Amino acid sequence: MPGEPTIAPFPVAPSPTVIPQRKHVDAAHLDLDARAMDTATREPAAQTPQIPQTAEPAETLAAVELAEKPVFALHRGGKMEIASTVPLRDRADLSLAYTPGVAEVCTAIAAKPELAREYTWKSHTVAVVTDGTAVLGLGNIGPLAALPVMEGKAVLFKQFGGIDAVPICLDCTDTDELVETIVRLAPGFGGINLEDISAPRCFEIERRLRERLDIPVFHDDQHGTAIVLLAALRNAATVTGRTLGELRAVISGAGAAGVAIAKILVEAGIGDVAVADSRGIVHSGRTDLTPIKRELAELTNKAGLSGSLAEALAGADAFIGVSAGTVPESAVATMAPDCIIAAMANPDPEIHPDVARKYAAVVATGRSDFPNQVNNVLAFPGVFAGALAAGAREITEEMKLAAADALAGVVADELSPECVIPSPFDPRVAPAVAMAVAAAAAV
Amino acid sequence: MPGEPTIAPFPVAPSPTVIPQRKHVDAAHLDLDARAMDTATREPAAQTPQIPQTAEPAETLAAVELAEKPVFALHRGGKMEIASTVPLRDRADLSLAYTPGVAEVCTAIAAKPELAREYTWKSHTVAVVTDGTAVLGLGNIGPLAALPVMEGKAVLFKQFGGIDAVPICLDCTDTDELVETIVRLAPGFGGINLEDISAPRCFEIERRLRERLDIPVFHDDQHGTAIVLLAALRNAATVTGRTLGELRAVISGAGAAGVAIAKILVEAGIGDVAVADSRGIVHSGRTDLTPIKRELAELTNKAGLSGSLAEALAGADAFIGVSAGTVPESAVATMAPDCIIAAMANPDPEIHPDVARKYAAVVATGRSDFPNQVNNVLAFPGVFAGALAAGAREITEEMKLAAADALAGVVADELSPECVIPSPFDPRVAPAVAMAVAAAAAV
Repeated sequence: MPGEPTIAPFPVAPSPTVIPQRKHVDAAHLDLDARAMDTATREPAAQTPQIPQTAEPAETLAAVELAEKPVFALHRGGKMEIASTVPLRDRADLSLAYTPGVAEVCTAIAAKPELAREYTWKSHTVAVVTDGTAVLGLGNIGPLAALPVMEGKAVLFKQFGGIDAVPICLDCTDTDELVETIVRLAPGFGGINLEDISAPRCFEIERRLRERLDIPVFHDDQHGTAIVLLAALRNAATVTGRTLGELRAVISGAGAAGVAIAKILVEAGIGDVAVADSRGIVHSGRTDLTPIKRELAELTNKAGLSGSLAEALAGADAFIGVSAGTVPESAVATMAPDCIIAAMANPDPEIHPDVARKYAAVVATGRSDFPNQVNNVLAFPGVFAGALAAGAREITEEMKLAAADALAGVVADELSPECVIPSPFDPRVAPAVAMAVAAAAAV
Repeated sequence: MPGEPTIAPFPVAPSPTVIPQRKHVDAAHLDLDARAMDTATREPAAQTPQIPQTAEPAETLAAVELAEKPVFALHRGGKMEIASTVPLRDRADLSLAYTPGVAEVCTAIAAKPELAREYTWKSHTVAVVTDGTAVLGLGNIGPLAALPVMEGKAVLFKQFGGIDAVPICLDCTDTDELVETIVRLAPGFGGINLEDISAPRCFEIERRLRERLDIPVFHDDQHGTAIVLLAALRNAATVTGRTLGELRAVISGAGAAGVAIAKILVEAGIGDVAVADSRGIVHSGRTDLTPIKRELAELTNKAGLSGSLAEALAGADAFIGVSAGTVPESAVATMAPDCIIAAMANPDPEIHPDVARKYAAVVATGRSDFPNQVNNVLAFPGVFAGALAAGAREITEEMKLAAADALAGVVADELSPECVIPSPFDPRVAPAVAMAVAAAAAV
C-alpha cells in the first residue's frame, strides 16, 4: 500500500499509565488515551463496581488513605514494563521481526537449539518464581500478594545485573506440582531464581529442578544470603585478626537461610559451626530432626554441642541470626572477646546493634540504617550475570564460594569494623561478582 | 552510610547486548562491560565450545552464514527487554520499591486481592503462551523454537496496544498438563493470549481455561483471525452492494482459524457458510467428524451441501481460505458474479491474487505485498487493551463482534475493492477496537 504512515504506538504512554479503570469505560466517553495520560485523577480499582469487595470493612484499606502513602504512589501501575529492542516502523520492519521473516529464525533454532542463546532473549532472561509461601517476613500470603516483591526483585536484577527478570507467581504449593510447572515453563528462560518458597519444601524443589533443568537454578533466600554472609564473616575475621578456620560460629535459625549458611561456612573451612532451631542446637542425638536437619547434624557441630542456643553462645566467636526472636544480653555477654555478631532478622535484629556493640568487635545486620548491611542484592545480580555470561548449566558450590570471595574482596583495601561488606550501591560489586562466578564456571 | 554514591547500573547497555559469550569467559580477561558494549565482534553461541552440537553438518547452519542475514542480525539477543518504571538511585528508593516498603503493598493486596490491579503490573500484562505445536506454517517445532514468534507477538502487543506481554513457551503438549500449568502461572498476569497451539487441542484448552480463570483468555489463531476476516467480509459485501446476510461463503480449512471464522460468521448473521476439510464439505451425514466438526456441521451448511470444496464453490459468493493447498481456477470460475475471495494461506494463497482478480470483485490475502491484508495485529492489541481497560473477566462473543465492527468502521469512508480492511499500521485501528471492546464488555 503506497504512502504507508509511520505507526503511532497506542497508547504512547509507558505501561504503568495504562492501568484499567473500569469506571471510565463507557461507549460515549471512553478515552483510553486521555486515561493513559492522566494518573492524577485515577481512583483505585478497589472502588470499581464490578470487582467483588472482600469481607473486612472498607475503612481498613480506604483507597484514599492508600493513595496518599508514598509507597502506594510509587507502586501504582507496578514497577516494570516490557520494551521492544527492535524497530517496528513499517511493513519491512514487521516482516523481519514477525512474519514472514521470523520463520527463518525459528527454523534455525529448531535445527540447532543452542542458537536460541544467540537469537532470542533467553540468554539474558531469568524467571523469578515464587509460590508466595514465605514472602519477606509476611509468611504465606499467596502468589498474587507476592507479586510486588517479585517485581521489585526483577527491577533489581535489571538495574544491578543487566538481567531481564520476569515475575512468575505460581498458584500451587505442592512440591511435585511446583517442580513440574517450573520445568514446563523453563524453555524460554536462561535461569530460574526461586524466591520466597517456604522450607523445607524449598530444599527438595531446588534439588529436583537442578537435576531436571540444564539452566542455572538458584534459591536466593538460601544461597544469596549465604554468599553475602560468608563474605562479611571472612572480612570480619580479618578485621579481628583471625581466619575463618579459627572461628566457632553459632547460627540461630534452621530455615532456608540458616541451612545454606551452615553449608557454605563448612565448605569455606570455618573452624566449627552449630545451628540452633526452636528446639535448641541441632545434633545427631536428636530424634525430632527433618531429613535436612539430620544432614546438618552430620555436617556441623564438631564440638558435639547440645542444649540451648544460649549455651552454645558461651565462648563462641560469631553469632549469625537468621531467625525471629531475640537473644538475651546475658547470653551475648558470654561470647568470646572480639566476637562477631551478624543479627539479620528484619526489622528487629535478634540482638540490637546497640547491645551487640557492647560485646562484639564487628556488628552486621539486615538493615540499611546500620553499618554492614547483609543484603542479597550484593549477590544475585552478579551471580546470574556471571552464570549466564558463562553459559553455565548450573550454579555450583565453587561459583558461590567465588562470588563470596569476590564480594569480600571489593572492600579488601578499606576494611574496618564498620565496613566488612560493600554497600548495595557500590558499583564495583556486580561486575566483580559476575566475573568471579563466570570464571569459576569456566573451570 | 554517608556519601552514598548514586548507583551505576551494570551493565548499562540494553539486555540484547549482554548475550552470554562463553568463549569470553576467562578469569584474566573477562570484561562483561566491554562485551556488553560490543556486538560487532560477537560470534554466535553456536560456536562456543561448551554447547553440544546437533547431528547435522555445521555447514547447514554455518554461524557466519547466519550472521550475514539481516533477519538474524535483527534477532541477535532477542527483540525485547524488561525496563524498570521506578527510580532506584539510593537507599530511599530501594526501601520503597523493595524491602521494607514493599511489604505494606503486599499486605494490602493480601487483604484486598483486587488491589493488585492498581499496585502491580498485572492489569496491563498478558502472557503469550504456546506449546510450539503449530507455529506459523512450520508446524510442531517445539517451545524453544517458537520463542522468536512469541517475542515478536510481545513487541506487537506493546507497540500497537501498549500491553506488556511475556512469552511463555511450555514444554508440554498434553491438554490436562497445559491447562493446569497455565492456571498455575496465571496469578501474575491480566490476560492469557494462547498462541500457535494445534487443533483440536486448542479448542478444549481455551474452553477449560475460560472456565477456570477470571481473566481474559483468547486464542489468537482462532479469534484474532475471525475478527479481522469478519471485518473484511462485511466491508467487501458493502463494496459489492450486498449485506452479510446475502452471502453464501465457503471456508477451506477446519482448523483453529476455520472453525472460529465459521462460528463468528454465523453469529454475525451470514446467509450461509459451509466448511471444507481435507475430506470435503463438513455435513451432519459424515461419520468421520471430530466433536468440534460435528458442532460445525450443526451450526453451518444450511444448504446441506456435501462433496468437495470445488462443488461447494459453484455459485458461492465468498471463498475464505485458511488451509494449505490450492483451488483450481476452474472451480474459482464457477463462483457467483462479483464474488469475494479471501485466500489467506501464507506464503502461498490458495488462489493467487492474479487468478482471483479475474473472477472476484474483492480479493484479500494474508500477505503484506497485496491489498487487503488480513493480519491478526489488526485485532489482538486492541482486543486486549479494551478488555483490560474494562476489567473484563473474559472476552465474550459480543466483544469479538464489536471488535470486528469497529475494525470495519475504520475504513468505512474510504471503502474500495482495494481497501476493505485497514493497514496494520493505521494508527486509528487499536484505539477504535479497544474502545469498542471495552464498551461491549461494560454492557
